[in-house]
Amino acid sequence: MRVITSITEVQVLIEKLRREGKIISLVPTMGYLHQGHVSLMKEGKRRGDVLVISIFVNPTQFGTGEDYDVYPRDLERDKKLAERAGVDIIFSPNALEIYPRAYQTYVQVEEVTKNLCGLSRPTHFRGVTTVVAKLFNIVKPHIAIFGEKDFQQLVTIRQMVRDLNYDIEIVGMPTHREEDGLAMSSRNAYLNPPERKAARSLYRSLLRASELFTSGEQQVEKIIGEVKKIIASEGIITVDYIKICDTENLQDLIVVDREAVLALAVKVGKARLIDNLVLKPLH
Amino acid sequence: MRVITSITEVQVLIEKLRREGKIISLVPTMGYLHQGHVSLMKEGKRRGDVLVISIFVNPTQFGTGEDYDVYPRDLERDKKLAERAGVDIIFSPNALEIYPRAYQTYVQVEEVTKNLCGLSRPTHFRGVTTVVAKLFNIVKPHIAIFGEKDFQQLVTIRQMVRDLNYDIEIVGMPTHREEDGLAMSSRNAYLNPPERKAARSLYRSLLRASELFTSGEQQVEKIIGEVKKIIASEGIITVDYIKICDTENLQDLIVVDREAVLALAVKVGKARLIDNLVLKPLH
Repeated sequence: MRVITSITEVQVLIEKLRREGKIISLVPTMGYLHQGHVSLMKEGKRRGDVLVISIFVNPTQFGTGEDYDVYPRDLERDKKLAERAGVDIIFSPNALEIYPRAYQTYVQVEEVTKNLCGLSRPTHFRGVTTVVAKLFNIVKPHIAIFGEKDFQQLVTIRQMVRDLNYDIEIVGMPTHREEDGLAMSSRNAYLNPPERKAARSLYRSLLRASELFTSGEQQVEKIIGEVKKIIASEGIITVDYIKICDTENLQDLIVVDREAVLALAVKVGKARLIDNLVLKPLH
Repeated sequence: MRVITSITEVQVLIEKLRREGKIISLVPTMGYLHQGHVSLMKEGKRRGDVLVISIFVNPTQFGTGEDYDVYPRDLERDKKLAERAGVDIIFSPNALEIYPRAYQTYVQVEEVTKNLCGLSRPTHFRGVTTVVAKLFNIVKPHIAIFGEKDFQQLVTIRQMVRDLNYDIEIVGMPTHREEDGLAMSSRNAYLNPPERKAARSLYRSLLRASELFTSGEQQVEKIIGEVKKIIASEGIITVDYIKICDTENLQDLIVVDREAVLALAVKVGKARLIDNLVLKPLH
């Protein structure tokens, strides 16, 4: 496994590998790797000849007052985990390598970034698409793998890839969960024990919603009402949003009459947590 | 020479050519080719193994009320000219191939697009960088060639390439001029004979400015005053701007104490014309 910090070095190496006919897969990460990342890496390994992961806490996707400075970082631990997962190349640049002096270019996906997390984090997805476009140009992967936990991010990246004609297959992988159902996230490290316990209610509420939906409830207001009640009963969770949206364009639904995503974002202590579940109507 | 209208077809073909080790050069155009384009194509031919040109009148770089609908088009003539210039592939997609339903992604270079043409055409460069990013992802060239006549466009594209880490060499070629000095442009076709004659004053005024500068004048106000006088004497030319800017960041200068560009945009009849000249201080 090679650890590379220079953009040019990655580009030269990948160009050579592509010329040799190797299939390159990329898993972009912000590091502090967990089993969710491992499942993405395994899929990357399975689909490609050369597995690249990037580890970069991307400043442009954090708003002012968000957790950029305190976001957990542990490159040494990440290296061990990546090596075990079969990673061939770790690309871990510093912030100035990615955003040099006079940096001024941004990639913006307009419609699908407006709702959900886009409402409370208005520059977040612009930062995500910008850094992912850069990673695509640096690593030139054939395949890139993202988690479905960040559902809006996945929809946004698929839209960017389609719109900007990146010749890259985007693979979405199911959310990896702790035994009690909490979606894996590097930000779970912020939770103290009572917060960690309260956070279980998120997945529990999603499952309850799914049950309701499967038993015939299609009214968004009703379903969301149940989810809210379960989360509110914990007392220490502040809801940012709980919404049900069309999975294609992420616009709010009133009735779940097509494939939809039930998505939520909450604040528990210092952690902003998100989770989601796809609701598929039976036809 | 092949003429291709499908994005996927170009991508599959280029991928194969790159795997064979071929150097791909790209000249992006809006068609209605003239000798200025020919000089770009010749340079592309000289530097690469496979010369691709794109012919696409890009709607997103035209503002409302601008000349998108009447912009001159003549694909049959362009094909002959391209064939003679040694073009291997013409990529000439239609607008829906480039901007399908639900299109919503834009690439924006922020600082260098603010001044000059960015003032009167606020969404122009966003359209240019978006379509050029797409062309780069479709054609995957090693080299792309642009004219220095569109000076701000060239600076903007260089900035985008640097910021988004496109592994592409950008080559700028000197402005090609008619015998009387008028910079070649597809938009010259809009000029009637008196307008065409008046338009000569643009290059004449640039040469006079260069003379002044070479003889020691460094005050921007003085130099621009001369340029204005010469253009005003024609009576039928409306000035959009005449400015002298730092060639690197395109910010206005008061004194020409570094490499600078004297850039102008005017309206003559229905045509908006631009021209420029670089002023290099002797050190």
